[in-house]
Amino acid sequence: MLRWLTAGESHGPELIAILEGLPAGVPVSLDQVREDLARRKLGHGRGSRMKFEQDELHFSGGVRHGSTLGGPIALRIGNTEWPKWTEVMSAEPVDLTEVSRGRGAPLTRPRPGHADLVGMQKYGFDEARPILERASARETAARVGLGAVARAFLGELGIRLVSHTLAIETIRSPEDAALPRPEDVDRLDADPVRCFDAATSAAMVERIDRAKKEGDTLGGVVEVLVYGLPPGLGSHVHWDRRLDAQLAAAIMGIQAIKGVEIGDGFETTRRPGSQAHDPLHLQDGTIVRASDRAGGTEGGMSTGTVLRVRAGMKPIATVPRALPTVDVATGEQAKAHHQRSDVCAVPASGVVAEAMVALVLANAVLEKFGGDSVAETRRNLEAYLAAIPAS
Amino acid sequence: MLRWLTAGESHGPELIAILEGLPAGVPVSLDQVREDLARRKLGHGRGSRMKFEQDELHFSGGVRHGSTLGGPIALRIGNTEWPKWTEVMSAEPVDLTEVSRGRGAPLTRPRPGHADLVGMQKYGFDEARPILERASARETAARVGLGAVARAFLGELGIRLVSHTLAIETIRSPEDAALPRPEDVDRLDADPVRCFDAATSAAMVERIDRAKKEGDTLGGVVEVLVYGLPPGLGSHVHWDRRLDAQLAAAIMGIQAIKGVEIGDGFETTRRPGSQAHDPLHLQDGTIVRASDRAGGTEGGMSTGTVLRVRAGMKPIATVPRALPTVDVATGEQAKAHHQRSDVCAVPASGVVAEAMVALVLANAVLEKFGGDSVAETRRNLEAYLAAIPAS
Amino acid sequence: MLRWLTAGESHGPELIAILEGLPAGVPVSLDQVREDLARRKLGHGRGSRMKFEQDELHFSGGVRHGSTLGGPIALRIGNTEWPKWTEVMSAEPVDLTEVSRGRGAPLTRPRPGHADLVGMQKYGFDEARPILERASARETAARVGLGAVARAFLGELGIRLVSHTLAIETIRSPEDAALPRPEDVDRLDADPVRCFDAATSAAMVERIDRAKKEGDTLGGVVEVLVYGLPPGLGSHVHWDRRLDAQLAAAIMGIQAIKGVEIGDGFETTRRPGSQAHDPLHLQDGTIVRASDRAGGTEGGMSTGTVLRVRAGMKPIATVPRALPTVDVATGEQAKAHHQRSDVCAVPASGVVAEAMVALVLANAVLEKFGGDSVAETRRNLEAYLAAIPAS
Amino acid sequence: MLRWLTAGESHGPELIAILEGLPAGVPVSLDQVREDLARRKLGHGRGSRMKFEQDELHFSGGVRHGSTLGGPIALRIGNTEWPKWTEVMSAEPVDLTEVSRGRGAPLTRPRPGHADLVGMQKYGFDEARPILERASARETAARVGLGAVARAFLGELGIRLVSHTLAIETIRSPEDAALPRPEDVDRLDADPVRCFDAATSAAMVERIDRAKKEGDTLGGVVEVLVYGLPPGLGSHVHWDRRLDAQLAAAIMGIQAIKGVEIGDGFETTRRPGSQAHDPLHLQDGTIVRASDRAGGTEGGMSTGTVLRVRAGMKPIATVPRALPTVDVATGEQAKAHHQRSDVCAVPASGVVAEAMVALVLANAVLEKFGGDSVAETRRNLEAYLAAIPAS
Repeated sequence: MLRWLTAGESHGPELIAILEGLPAGVPVSLDQVREDLARRKLGHGRGSRMKFEQDELHFSGGVRHGSTLGGPIALRIGNTEWPKWTEVMSAEPVDLTEVSRGRGAPLTRPRPGHADLVGMQKYGFDEARPILERASARETAARVGLGAVARAFLGELGIRLVSHTLAIETIRSPEDAALPRPEDVDRLDADPVRCFDAATSAAMVERIDRAKKEGDTLGGVVEVLVYGLPPGLGSHVHWDRRLDAQLAAAIMGIQAIKGVEIGDGFETTRRPGSQAHDPLHLQDGTIVRASDRAGGTEGGMSTGTVLRVRAGMKPIATVPRALPTVDVATGEQAKAHHQRSDVCAVPASGVVAEAMVALVLANAVLEKFGGDSVAETRRNLEAYLAAIPAS
Repeated sequence: MLRWLTAGESHGPELIAILEGLPAGVPVSLDQVREDLARRKLGHGRGSRMKFEQDELHFSGGVRHGSTLGGPIALRIGNTEWPKWTEVMSAEPVDLTEVSRGRGAPLTRPRPGHADLVGMQKYGFDEARPILERASARETAARVGLGAVARAFLGELGIRLVSHTLAIETIRSPEDAALPRPEDVDRLDADPVRCFDAATSAAMVERIDRAKKEGDTLGGVVEVLVYGLPPGLGSHVHWDRRLDAQLAAAIMGIQAIKGVEIGDGFETTRRPGSQAHDPLHLQDGTIVRASDRAGGTEGGMSTGTVLRVRAGMKPIATVPRALPTVDVATGEQAKAHHQRSDVCAVPASGVVAEAMVALVLANAVLEKFGGDSVAETRRNLEAYLAAIPAS
Repeated sequence: MLRWLTAGESHGPELIAILEGLPAGVPVSLDQVREDLARRKLGHGRGSRMKFEQDELHFSGGVRHGSTLGGPIALRIGNTEWPKWTEVMSAEPVDLTEVSRGRGAPLTRPRPGHADLVGMQKYGFDEARPILERASARETAARVGLGAVARAFLGELGIRLVSHTLAIETIRSPEDAALPRPEDVDRLDADPVRCFDAATSAAMVERIDRAKKEGDTLGGVVEVLVYGLPPGLGSHVHWDRRLDAQLAAAIMGIQAIKGVEIGDGFETTRRPGSQAHDPLHLQDGTIVRASDRAGGTEGGMSTGTVLRVRAGMKPIATVPRALPTVDVATGEQAKAHHQRSDVCAVPASGVVAEAMVALVLANAVLEKFGGDSVAETRRNLEAYLAAIPAS
Repeated sequence: MLRWLTAGESHGPELIAILEGLPAGVPVSLDQVREDLARRKLGHGRGSRMKFEQDELHFSGGVRHGSTLGGPIALRIGNTEWPKWTEVMSAEPVDLTEVSRGRGAPLTRPRPGHADLVGMQKYGFDEARPILERASARETAARVGLGAVARAFLGELGIRLVSHTLAIETIRSPEDAALPRPEDVDRLDADPVRCFDAATSAAMVERIDRAKKEGDTLGGVVEVLVYGLPPGLGSHVHWDRRLDAQLAAAIMGIQAIKGVEIGDGFETTRRPGSQAHDPLHLQDGTIVRASDRAGGTEGGMSTGTVLRVRAGMKPIATVPRALPTVDVATGEQAKAHHQRSDVCAVPASGVVAEAMVALVLANAVLEKFGGDSVAETRRNLEAYLAAIPAS
């Protein structure tokens, strides 16, 4: 069983992530992690904030000479902006200077759509900084870091992930557009909105530019595809062992996600049963599914066809045209705090979703195949596949 | 922390469910459970199968004189059809009679859209009975039983759940329809499709009747609403402590669910940020939200407004006009097994979703407020609410 | 990962146990379970209560035709005394008759050494029945039932468990006595105190008889041995993945256990380092350990030698010469309640400890080797053993 | 629920620990952590290695201005020896220099009593370094760091921990020696072996000196005492919710521990029932226990009297007079690797045990009382105590 925790605040000294349970012998490098962290910043519509985030990276444990040791893997992601925040976010009590008193002034105007207000109520704070520092999407860098490690493990087993942007606000890829494949990732990453359809991409960029001018923000939909999965990950025998349930939690557990779909998702609910499933056919002595409406799971288990998971992201809640709120210090109506921010984080959210899916799948692989070294897990997987009857 | 497990096969002697971690002093009765089990069978479009399921009910443990004891609660739901299946599903080895050999004949034509084929591959069976017996939606009766217990606990804290049908296939309630409230539950349960809008309900019934004639099946969308939640259930600090993530897993963990939404869900992705959130206003010295687009969570925590969770259900996969499959015994193309079944299970799925949401919320309440008796949990909850500053 | 829950009260209608996560294809039968339940009652010094416990047994789910299905396994153990307790322990509210009012009279004199007093404080009860009904050792029957199933799984992998009595009060087997082996189990079960040394056994019986005359009770020490374990179950990488830590929890989690040892345990603390470990030697090209002081674990992992775990059981707390207590209803000093009970439960506790060890090991096997069918788990185990270099 | 993970290798750049689930508002400081890390190095008989370990400390997250934020707390403990190991333990592939080739030479002579051999077999390594780097007791520094944080939380609730040395090899404190109390901790820490009995302490020091001369190592027994616990932590309702079971796992999960006792432990097994329990008496209208044989738990729950947990530690396995082993590279009999090491780590192990007990208790407190801020948890605790009837 994989276990993982992340820690660290948005303006703290560093993010920390620990991943426990990965086998020994997984080839990992800081370059892989760095690349995914860079991909997390992609996307037309990202504000200047992203440019600041040049992450200083370290493996604190679990990796030696480019390969995992079997023990917990710890990743440390430094915050290059930290020097400006040392006093405001100091772990130890400090006397604030005038500058830091300004930067660290109590945030008493909670932002609608954020954790601010309810977090203050839950944890007993009279301002929002202690909440938003942890609720910020900066935390997803830690997940993406671990996701890169999980992906390296899956790669050793021939399992490959791809994410792409399906929609930004009402601009949506055509239903019949081809699915990107692992070999298309570079092209996707080069697209300004990580959309596989060129015409849609252009319209998305235009829409983002317009939103920027209007002082507004945009949401959208991303999709994660997984190639090379064996059949039988997850299980039908208990609800929380279902792969789709685990994926739903992982995706909905990303900041700003309000909807999750497997395969055709809600579209499937609008089709009659005769048009909604994937009939089984014989092809060269093997059973195949001609379609993949189900998105690669049946009965909560991977079927071996392409896994498809979608995430619906709400528009960024820190809207430049600031939303009405209440100042909790004065009890007066006010405008919400506004810090520099992005117009649209959808393209990048695909990379975060990829990371979460990779972590879920790595766990599912270990549950089914066990193994304390990559060689052992692979051997068990191959023996399983060899034992499945042809038809 | 609540833990729970269910066991039992569709045609086995009984379903069993254990719920561990509920405080002492929760008033529960078999009548409450029986009522929810009956609600689970509601809905125009259910086949004759449902009529068989007159569940014989027992508390095997954890309840005394109408009140929980603090230990694990066990529920046993007898299967009235069991006498017909004693040989086919016998736990002990048996010699089959001619009749039971027929009823228990190997199911070698796996049904598309079901766990059948991949379950056989995963667990190493050469026919589907060992899989479909557990994958069947009959198992949800055990969840609904425990959900009734969880709901009784929430009720002691003033928390009430309502579920209703939003859509069947393309027939959908108007966007601006009023939300049903706890006092509307009887009226909802009396509606043939558990839809709160009379005109929509009539159109849904008609659509189901048509599908039945066409030998087809239908999916749809249900919504669970929760009234009376305190702010601060769940947490923003780690992805798997987010209430929305936990709800997504619980809902996607129901058989046939392919999509989950919180609040306006995917609709929110199609709105600009200025129209997508819930501004904060002062009302009689209290901070309120005028809208509930978010569906009652911000930052993964309940805000104290109405929680709204939606589930998208695919059409029943056992389509009367049987789907193409492959007979794994002969290696020939074939038609899928078809057992008597329903046209549409959407209305009933709302009751299952209610149960899952109740179990998630009971757990979230205990995580925040602790307590080994209802009196203790309630005292802690009330003291917390009293300590939240007015504005 | 194996998960399991038990439910049911001592005088309730039945005990229920669910085991989730066991592979398909494990050969199990009610006879195996019944045999272990019978062994749980063994031992000179058991009171008349044990004779009542003729357990009526059912598999409610998870088993078909003598083999597990891969889904949750549910066991139901009826209580033959239930008819006498239907009113006192009724789940539904009842009017008590005069007889049941007597049998169900409030237990307001909590017994020292039992959960009674602190349980009442924790759960908010003004008498002890709701506590002692669940705290009673009767619950261990459910564990022994699941343990029999876990043992059947381990048996398929060549792993065999043996338990025996090392000490009753100060009567102790000689340090240099031979260890019983799997083939000695029948002989052990036939011994009145399940002691492998005949002379010690006789002295133990005599001691029990004397205690009975004196109105006293006795504790002691049992040991569980496991043969045929592969090396590498558990892990050194995190404290809670250590096999010894998991065993310690499982053993200390048995009613009345106050101490746990692995291998020579506390005796090892009294030896210098040069005499405390197991040197490695070559034997026919294989690395072997000549001694087994460590009890079969190093670094929290099974080494492949015999696993030895010991449990120290306190004397039964329901002492016939009742202990001083306070009547919580009157606030007066009093004598503790005394129900019929045993003089010494040590011999039987070995069988309970065996069950707990079996459940821990089954989980550890699945963590390392995975597998959804016995064939798959065994194949993975064998491939692992084959890949370990000879020296 | 508290969750925590540690990461890092003995000669890696740093240890990392994350603790998730602690409420906001706990006053913590690096000085507290530093003090406990220093206490972990105490004890006559520690080798020169300990002197190297001047830990550079950072909170990476979860703490601001001396108080916890409610999010995960991350601690980073730098390794001052790291500059010597940068190549040998580099996370990235490196070309080794001659010096680092020597220091990093394959460890092919696994040490008996260590994780070395079985770790290599489990994880598929042909030398022991990847195993011993994580199995080393250096990792306990991370636990002690988190334990200091947990202890700060408990301290806010009036709960205080003390640990002391009961025995080193056969030198043991008198049975009737007084128990140290929280106010005695400084005196204990000043004692060369952390023993509360002066004469025993002197004998222990002498024994350690002798062992050092003989090239041998020593084990012993430590005890953790907890003052100020409320009754009702843990539960009798399920084995793994028992506080004693959780404590047993936590203690046995420490490197080199082979036995665990609650209260009088195995000594209790050698007393008749009439002498083995703690009778209840009235004192000033309150129910009290005159003795504490049980060690502060009944039925798996804290009783409110002093909690007593004992750990039996085997002698250090790296014996200067090196033990026989096999060189796995040559297949020849050999002497085990020997690195500089301690004669006796028992006095320090009490500090590690304290940390583990603190983490278990902090979790148990949160399970019973909930709370997202210290104020909330304390309020719930006080209301619970106030509601317990006097007698």
